[in-house]
Amino acid sequence: MADLRGRPDILQEPLRAICWDGDAVAILDQRLLPERIRIIRCTTAAQVVQAIKQMAIRGAPAVGIAGAMALALGARCIQATHAQTFRRKFHHLCRQVKSVRPTGNNLSWAVEKIHAVVVENADADARDLSVLIRQMADAILSNDVRVNNAIGALGAKIVPQRARILTYCNTGSLATAGYGTALGIIRAAHALDPEIHVFACETRPFLQGARLTAYELKHDRIPFTLITDNAAGCLMRQGKVDLVLVGADRIAANGDVANKIGTYTLAILAHTHNVPFYVAAPRSTIDPSVSDGHGIQIEERDPKEITHIMGRALAPAGTAAWNPAFDITPYQYITGIVTEVGVLRKPLRRAIRKALETLESS
Amino acid sequence: MADLRGRPDILQEPLRAICWDGDAVAILDQRLLPERIRIIRCTTAAQVVQAIKQMAIRGAPAVGIAGAMALALGARCIQATHAQTFRRKFHHLCRQVKSVRPTGNNLSWAVEKIHAVVVENADADARDLSVLIRQMADAILSNDVRVNNAIGALGAKIVPQRARILTYCNTGSLATAGYGTALGIIRAAHALDPEIHVFACETRPFLQGARLTAYELKHDRIPFTLITDNAAGCLMRQGKVDLVLVGADRIAANGDVANKIGTYTLAILAHTHNVPFYVAAPRSTIDPSVSDGHGIQIEERDPKEITHIMGRALAPAGTAAWNPAFDITPYQYITGIVTEVGVLRKPLRRAIRKALETLESS
Repeated sequence: MADLRGRPDILQEPLRAICWDGDAVAILDQRLLPERIRIIRCTTAAQVVQAIKQMAIRGAPAVGIAGAMALALGARCIQATHAQTFRRKFHHLCRQVKSVRPTGNNLSWAVEKIHAVVVENADADARDLSVLIRQMADAILSNDVRVNNAIGALGAKIVPQRARILTYCNTGSLATAGYGTALGIIRAAHALDPEIHVFACETRPFLQGARLTAYELKHDRIPFTLITDNAAGCLMRQGKVDLVLVGADRIAANGDVANKIGTYTLAILAHTHNVPFYVAAPRSTIDPSVSDGHGIQIEERDPKEITHIMGRALAPAGTAAWNPAFDITPYQYITGIVTEVGVLRKPLRRAIRKALETLESS
Repeated sequence: MADLRGRPDILQEPLRAICWDGDAVAILDQRLLPERIRIIRCTTAAQVVQAIKQMAIRGAPAVGIAGAMALALGARCIQATHAQTFRRKFHHLCRQVKSVRPTGNNLSWAVEKIHAVVVENADADARDLSVLIRQMADAILSNDVRVNNAIGALGAKIVPQRARILTYCNTGSLATAGYGTALGIIRAAHALDPEIHVFACETRPFLQGARLTAYELKHDRIPFTLITDNAAGCLMRQGKVDLVLVGADRIAANGDVANKIGTYTLAILAHTHNVPFYVAAPRSTIDPSVSDGHGIQIEERDPKEITHIMGRALAPAGTAAWNPAFDITPYQYITGIVTEVGVLRKPLRRAIRKALETLESS
């Protein structure tokens, strides 16, 4: 992986988490933001997988795109003269990529989209498949930009005038291919009403809020205040939050939402204080095969992400820590889900089913 | 302030936040724990005030004791041949010490206790007053040890067998003169039942949980797991918390509790999940002059405590952050308050009044 110093094209407006750099995949290393700009240049699928695993790139839609690009890279590198060998090796790679981060649905969704290309083109040879796979990866990327815009436009309508919006984790350009989901709505709302104000929760332990959302909001000159995650309750009790807007990593058929650890607490707080709680996510985040949140696997990450920061220990040596990356917010606490085909409202199970029918028939 | 390396007496069992070192006040610098042991040796009241302000010492009871010791140091240093001059200068010093951290009641309480010595001994000269003040400061310190033991013994009775206890911030030896309030209860409960388990919230931004509570629990070999503050909701939803135990910085006459920012969120979560929520605090934390939480002044601290850690930036330069040090938990969410004279239960206003009557008549 190359360490390209300076500010390469990837960082020109709008911010970009990932893009093609010739035949390589360039990933902005989000672990170092905002302190340092470093691009990881991946020439193999394994390098992209590693970047996903270590959270150099994160955010469910961006991880899905990275997975698709990893497969496109991987397909090109597979040594196989016979199509059958290619298919076997590629199938194996698909399983590897899919499992790297299990909670977010967009990765499985993207891998399945790519895999379908191979299945549907039964007569194609390895070289043709490789081209078709790259085309699908590109389509997934460019589709996400359009989806973001649709979510932004639809979502902006639910934002009241001069709204004070609480948001969580990072759901912007760094988490997608476009301008974001929840943060895309904030961007669209801000374009219409410069007087909105954002409260960004820092989002421990990875600090996506403090490091990434603050970076994007500052970049776009959207007024915001950073708070610790534990201050959200106090802020709501003071009547200073009009709306909570979060993203999602996987949405079950009944509307239960897996999202960054802490989302559930915000939903309880919003419910207690009568604050609308909206989730913004593309269709690719919805997993109709899972009936409710109990069926969603929650990734547990290295305790060191909690006990250490920037290489230094915060807690005494040997401290055990519990580090689930996500939690489940039951559908009861969700006011609505903003997707590219509309704002889904209660009863969510029915609204989700109808939205999927619309999408699949279009 | 001297930087005494090594492990001086102050750190022998039990852990101590503050003690006399000859005529100086020795304060364990909690900002550097657990990475480094450093003792701040204060020879003037101003140095102790500075240590309180910068949170080298924190925890409402410990801050009260530090305030009393600052006044004892200050009294000895006042240059005054006439008792009247001494009284005037000392009165001024009392006001300075009292204002350094406004939310915790124990500091005001301790300053008033000391000030009463000067008022009640109208005939005493400067030298005698100085001795009497030192005696009162010593009494406040040794009384806190007894109070901790009483809270621990009473509180242990509310802890179920093999309880999984969620605690917040640091309420142990580092926050008091003895073995703590909420953490004192945990210590007493663990002595009776080694199978209890503690979940310590890291407590952003100062990380009292990760740095200090983890340090104390490890020191005492009490089994514990560190979690981020935002994981508490998920943990409770999984049914893994039997009891929440927190400390307090000021308790209003109606039972509303000011405590470390994030306490309110935990109380809401405990309420939602039917988990008992107990506050542990000495009489000196109760402020009967404040009818309810609205009357409690909440200290707001430097945003840098959120945007920076160990001298390094977490958020982009120029990020605005809101950093209230405390929040208010309304009495409705509190199952009981464990004091040295008993566990106060609903209706809390009446229980608090009766407890104060008992204490004042004893």
